[in-house]
Amino acid sequence: MRIALDAMGGDHAPREIMYGAQNGLRFLSPQDELLLFGPRERLESECREIGLVDPRVKIEHCTQVIGMDEAPVDALRSKRDSTIARMASAAGKNEIDALISAGNTGAFAGACQLRVGPIEGVSRPGIAVLLPTFHGPVIVCDVGANVAPKPHHLYEYARMCKIYAQAILHIDDPKIGIVSIGEEAGKGNTLVKEAFQMMRDDPSLSFIGNVEGRDIFAGSGNVFICDGFTGNVTLKLTEGLAEGLFNTIRHEIEQEGGPTLAKQFEPIVERIWARHDFAEYGGAPLLGVRKVSIICHGRSDRRAIANAIRVSAEQVRANLIGIITQMLAGVREGAG
Amino acid sequence: MRIALDAMGGDHAPREIMYGAQNGLRFLSPQDELLLFGPRERLESECREIGLVDPRVKIEHCTQVIGMDEAPVDALRSKRDSTIARMASAAGKNEIDALISAGNTGAFAGACQLRVGPIEGVSRPGIAVLLPTFHGPVIVCDVGANVAPKPHHLYEYARMCKIYAQAILHIDDPKIGIVSIGEEAGKGNTLVKEAFQMMRDDPSLSFIGNVEGRDIFAGSGNVFICDGFTGNVTLKLTEGLAEGLFNTIRHEIEQEGGPTLAKQFEPIVERIWARHDFAEYGGAPLLGVRKVSIICHGRSDRRAIANAIRVSAEQVRANLIGIITQMLAGVREGAG
Repeated sequence: MRIALDAMGGDHAPREIMYGAQNGLRFLSPQDELLLFGPRERLESECREIGLVDPRVKIEHCTQVIGMDEAPVDALRSKRDSTIARMASAAGKNEIDALISAGNTGAFAGACQLRVGPIEGVSRPGIAVLLPTFHGPVIVCDVGANVAPKPHHLYEYARMCKIYAQAILHIDDPKIGIVSIGEEAGKGNTLVKEAFQMMRDDPSLSFIGNVEGRDIFAGSGNVFICDGFTGNVTLKLTEGLAEGLFNTIRHEIEQEGGPTLAKQFEPIVERIWARHDFAEYGGAPLLGVRKVSIICHGRSDRRAIANAIRVSAEQVRANLIGIITQMLAGVREGAG
Repeated sequence: MRIALDAMGGDHAPREIMYGAQNGLRFLSPQDELLLFGPRERLESECREIGLVDPRVKIEHCTQVIGMDEAPVDALRSKRDSTIARMASAAGKNEIDALISAGNTGAFAGACQLRVGPIEGVSRPGIAVLLPTFHGPVIVCDVGANVAPKPHHLYEYARMCKIYAQAILHIDDPKIGIVSIGEEAGKGNTLVKEAFQMMRDDPSLSFIGNVEGRDIFAGSGNVFICDGFTGNVTLKLTEGLAEGLFNTIRHEIEQEGGPTLAKQFEPIVERIWARHDFAEYGGAPLLGVRKVSIICHGRSDRRAIANAIRVSAEQVRANLIGIITQMLAGVREGAG
């Protein structure tokens, strides 16, 4: 297995990415390879400084980096030797099995779509995140790859997420809902209404119908499908609200309860917070492309990157891409 | 001043609405009137049971009620003697100054749009909610009146919300952002990109550009504009997440800290929770119609209804509708 890692992607690159690579090696077998994409001299110097010496680690020299805020389409066009473009090209040529980046999400998703290529039967890939809830993790897809999807894109997400939930959450028959503004059928915008019908009419899906924003955290389903705009707002809102709420509670306890109560309370906060920490989940797959493509949070630290390596290796070993491909092909044959 | 209240709207109607009316009377002057819409006999019996006797309270007999889950358009067409239809008609005939319902949101918004009528210059009304955050309340608009808006609808929301923020949050020059999936200009869907330009090009708005989901809770702005679909998901997600998080923390403290710690912690939780309680805010105005129209949460209790009466009276006294009308007319003249 060959996993490609964007050593220059993310707010804390390259140092935290390099530490993540170092820590993530424990999830790989002796014959696996971890390819670090970035400027050779800089990465070699990083390796020396952190003591990263392992025969499985290879550096793939790239002269360019796409910045976090660059316009994806322009950046991909002008920076052909960037880490992201080069990783995607290598994946497109079947030189690697998985690719990971905490860099520019739009550029990474675009590069995967263009150069890695879609699985046959998939029109547009979608980003699926595991969102921590009080009833365990749920999958939300799409969270930003496709801000103006068609109904059948959402339907494809539902079908791919079923396989993903089986593989990752170990749920045989995941309950799948579509995010809308009312539970009754017929509520929502045109996109939701049409996607609703496609999901409802597919007997292979355990479709629970429309769900509202609050239901995502209520344990009513395992997979929540939405357009990439709604999903992205949802994801960032969740992060911001949870963070803000924890900070408020900490602040209030210190103010009102004094240091003794704060000290008693701290481990409880830490434990709840850990369960809701994106770093534990190791990034979000871009479902629908021909290689395991893991998009990490821009703020990823070494733990998040190491977990992304773990998740990538698990998905390659579980043959997630192969299973999704077969399932989609089977349905096309069945329908034809 | 004459305020109309849907006595049959909401999950806890009519009893909690009646108590809300009773408690809300303290916000009205001796010459004001509170009109309760609903079946006369039932409401008279409710009045007797809770001891609601006040010369300012009048019952407006209606024989029908629109259920919470009825399809709005059909319900409005077939139930012309429903509380919601009758209130909207009365408002359209200038018989009342404000109307309040915790019933079917879609039906209420639709009735207001059709029968109360839009302010000149407003294409589509939008629901503006006050969302509690750790930096104080912010306004989010639209949260469900208009799930497929045009760019100029969002622009109209921004301009109306400026006046609303001045009146309600007492902020002279509110900072207005548009909810998108990246902070840079040019990020987002077509709707956001076009609305962005209209807001940016209006020197009367303090436009802060695109904001992400997390920024809503980060104190960066006072008003956040979005389409009704995104806004509705956001609103319900916020409710569900906050509720779930508080429940988890309570649960963990009881489990781990025991009853003593739980007891110490309880008043802190209560205080934070109270600050984030929708009932304190007394409903959300449907901005853009010719009368003060307040949409209450379906779960509203007596406190939420009393606060809605307070808010309605404040907005009528502040001449919110008149100010919005003048401002929109002024811009049309200036532009013409």
